[in-house]
Amino acid sequence: MKTIRASIIGFGAVGQGVAEVLLQKDEYLKNIGLDIKVVAIADSKGAAIDPDGVDLSKVLSKKRANGKDKGTVGSEKYTGLEIITTIDHELVIETTPTDIDTGGVGLANMRAAFEHGRDVVTSNKGPLALKYRELAGIASENGSNFKFEATVGGAMPIINLIREVLAGNDIISIEGILNGTCNYILTRMMEEQASYEQMLAESQELGIAETDPAYDVEGIDAACKLVILANSIFGMDATYKDIDVTGITKITPESLMLAQNDGYVVKLIGEVRKDLIRVGPRLVPVGHPLAVGGTLNVASIQTDLAGTVTITGKGAGSIETASAIISDVIAIYR
Amino acid sequence: MKTIRASIIGFGAVGQGVAEVLLQKDEYLKNIGLDIKVVAIADSKGAAIDPDGVDLSKVLSKKRANGKDKGTVGSEKYTGLEIITTIDHELVIETTPTDIDTGGVGLANMRAAFEHGRDVVTSNKGPLALKYRELAGIASENGSNFKFEATVGGAMPIINLIREVLAGNDIISIEGILNGTCNYILTRMMEEQASYEQMLAESQELGIAETDPAYDVEGIDAACKLVILANSIFGMDATYKDIDVTGITKITPESLMLAQNDGYVVKLIGEVRKDLIRVGPRLVPVGHPLAVGGTLNVASIQTDLAGTVTITGKGAGSIETASAIISDVIAIYR
Repeated sequence: MKTIRASIIGFGAVGQGVAEVLLQKDEYLKNIGLDIKVVAIADSKGAAIDPDGVDLSKVLSKKRANGKDKGTVGSEKYTGLEIITTIDHELVIETTPTDIDTGGVGLANMRAAFEHGRDVVTSNKGPLALKYRELAGIASENGSNFKFEATVGGAMPIINLIREVLAGNDIISIEGILNGTCNYILTRMMEEQASYEQMLAESQELGIAETDPAYDVEGIDAACKLVILANSIFGMDATYKDIDVTGITKITPESLMLAQNDGYVVKLIGEVRKDLIRVGPRLVPVGHPLAVGGTLNVASIQTDLAGTVTITGKGAGSIETASAIISDVIAIYR
Repeated sequence: MKTIRASIIGFGAVGQGVAEVLLQKDEYLKNIGLDIKVVAIADSKGAAIDPDGVDLSKVLSKKRANGKDKGTVGSEKYTGLEIITTIDHELVIETTPTDIDTGGVGLANMRAAFEHGRDVVTSNKGPLALKYRELAGIASENGSNFKFEATVGGAMPIINLIREVLAGNDIISIEGILNGTCNYILTRMMEEQASYEQMLAESQELGIAETDPAYDVEGIDAACKLVILANSIFGMDATYKDIDVTGITKITPESLMLAQNDGYVVKLIGEVRKDLIRVGPRLVPVGHPLAVGGTLNVASIQTDLAGTVTITGKGAGSIETASAIISDVIAIYR
C-alpha cells in the first residue's frame, strides 16, 4: 500500500466532489494499492488540517451546514498557499475557481506546489490558459507530476486519451464542442425555433448558464480549453488572448433553420492544428460525430495512424469533474 | 534505452501494418526510450529470423514481391509456434487471422507465449472470444502482459480508455456499433432507400464487405467483440456462442424510412451490462452520440462517476489496427 498525502485547495463544487469521490472509492483505491490521505483542505474562509487524515464526511457536513457556499471547511487560519508551503504532503489537488484574467490564487498555488516538489492535479483552467509553459517548466525542473484532464471538457477524457491511449500517433488536429452551455442553447434554439435570448433565459433558469453568461456564450471558456490543448498537445505557447474567437450571441433561429434544411446543424467549434487556433460557429453535417446535442462536449482528434477518433462526454458537473481528477491521481501513483 | 525483442506472428494486412508503423515510428519510439527489435516474423509459408533484428523494409518488399498475399516473409522453416517456443524474445505480436470456431493457431500461440513468460499484444479476436479467462489466467500466472485493444473496434480505443483514462469509475454498461460493414450497409440503405441486397452488393464492390459476408451481417463479429468487452471489463466468462444475436439481413428500407420519419436511425447495437449481453438492430435517435454513419464504430460507456462517455473511430484498416497494437506495446514498456 502506497500512502499519498494530499491537500485539496479550493472547496467549492469540484473540491467537494473530490472529497465525495475519495470517500466513495476508498475501498477501490486501497484495492489498487493507493491510500490517498487528505491532510489539509482549504477554502477561502479557513482550513481543516490533520496529519493523520482529515475526516472527509465531517468536513463535507460542516461546509454544507449553513447552506450552499455559506460554511467553511474548518477554523484553522491557513490559506491554501500556506498549506502548500508549510505542510508535508505529496499531492496538491488544486480546485480553486478559474480566474482567466490573472490566473488568480491558483497560479500562485501551482507555482508554490512545484517549487516544493509536490505533484499537482487540477481542474483550474486560468493558470493553464495564461501560463502553461512556465508551469510545465517548473514542474519538470522539480520532478513534479502535473496533470489537468479536468480542465478540458470535465468528464470528457481527451488529454489522457491522446497521451496514453493514442500513444504513438502524431496529432494533426483537434476540433470540438468545448462548452456545454453554448451547445445547449444552440440545440434548443433549433428544436424550438426560438431566439438566442429566449433559450439563454431558459438555460439560466435551469442553472446551465450563469447569471453573467459572457464567459460561456462569447466563446471565452471554449478558447481557454483550446489553449490548454494547443499548449499541452501541440507544444504551442499560446494564451487565450491570442485566439480568434466568435461566440454564439449573433446566431438567429432563421440561420439554424436554413442549415437544418440542408442537413446541417450549427455548433460552436474550437479548432487547433499546427498553424491555426480559433473558436467560432460552424456548420456540421447531421450524423457527423461532432453533431451531438444538449449540454454534451465532443472532440474529434485527427491522427496519422488511427485516423480520426471522436470522444463525447459530460463537460461539467462536480462529480464528473472529480472523476477526471481521480483518474489523474490514479495515473500518477498506480 | 530499453531494447524489446519482438516477434510478429502472422503477416497479413495487420502484421504488415505493424512492420510499417515500427519503421515509420522508429525515431519516436527511441525518443521515448524504446528500441523494438523484431527478431522473427512468421507467416503461413515461412519465416524471417535474425537475432540482431530483421530488416523490416526488406521483409515487406519480399512479402509483397509476387502480389498481395502471394509471397512469404522468408525461407526459414519455422512456424509461428516454433518461434514462440524456441527463440529468445520478450514480446509476441500475434496477428494471425481470427478463427472463431476453434481459436485457430492464435490460441496455441498465445498459450505458448505465456508459458514461456512472453508478453502478448494481439489483434486476433478468436482466442479471446472463446478462451479469454483461460488466457488471462495463464498470462497472470506467468507474470506476462496481455493486451488486446486492437481486437475490439480497430483504431477506436475502448479497452485502454476504460482501464486507464476512466480508472476509478465503475462501468455500468457498454453499448455500441462494433461492426463497420453493418453500419455502412444500414447507412447506405437509409440514404438511398435501397434494399439490403443492393447495399450489400455495393459494399462488396467497395471491399467493405467480404465475399462471404455472414460473419459481419449476421452479427457474429460484433458478438465476438462484445464478448471480449464482457470478459475483460465486466469479468464475465462468456463465449460468443452464449450471446443472443440478430443480424441486419432482415431489415427493410421501409422500416428505415418509418424510423427516419420519427427522428430515428436503425443501427446494429451490441450491448453488455451486468446481466445482459446481446447484439441486434435498435432504434437510435438522430443526434444521439451512437447515431454515427458510414463505416464508423462507436461505443457508449456508462459509468458511475463520469456519466456516459462515447468514443467513435475507424473499426478496421491495417494501419489503424497496427496503431492500436503499437499503443499497447508502448503502454507495456514505457
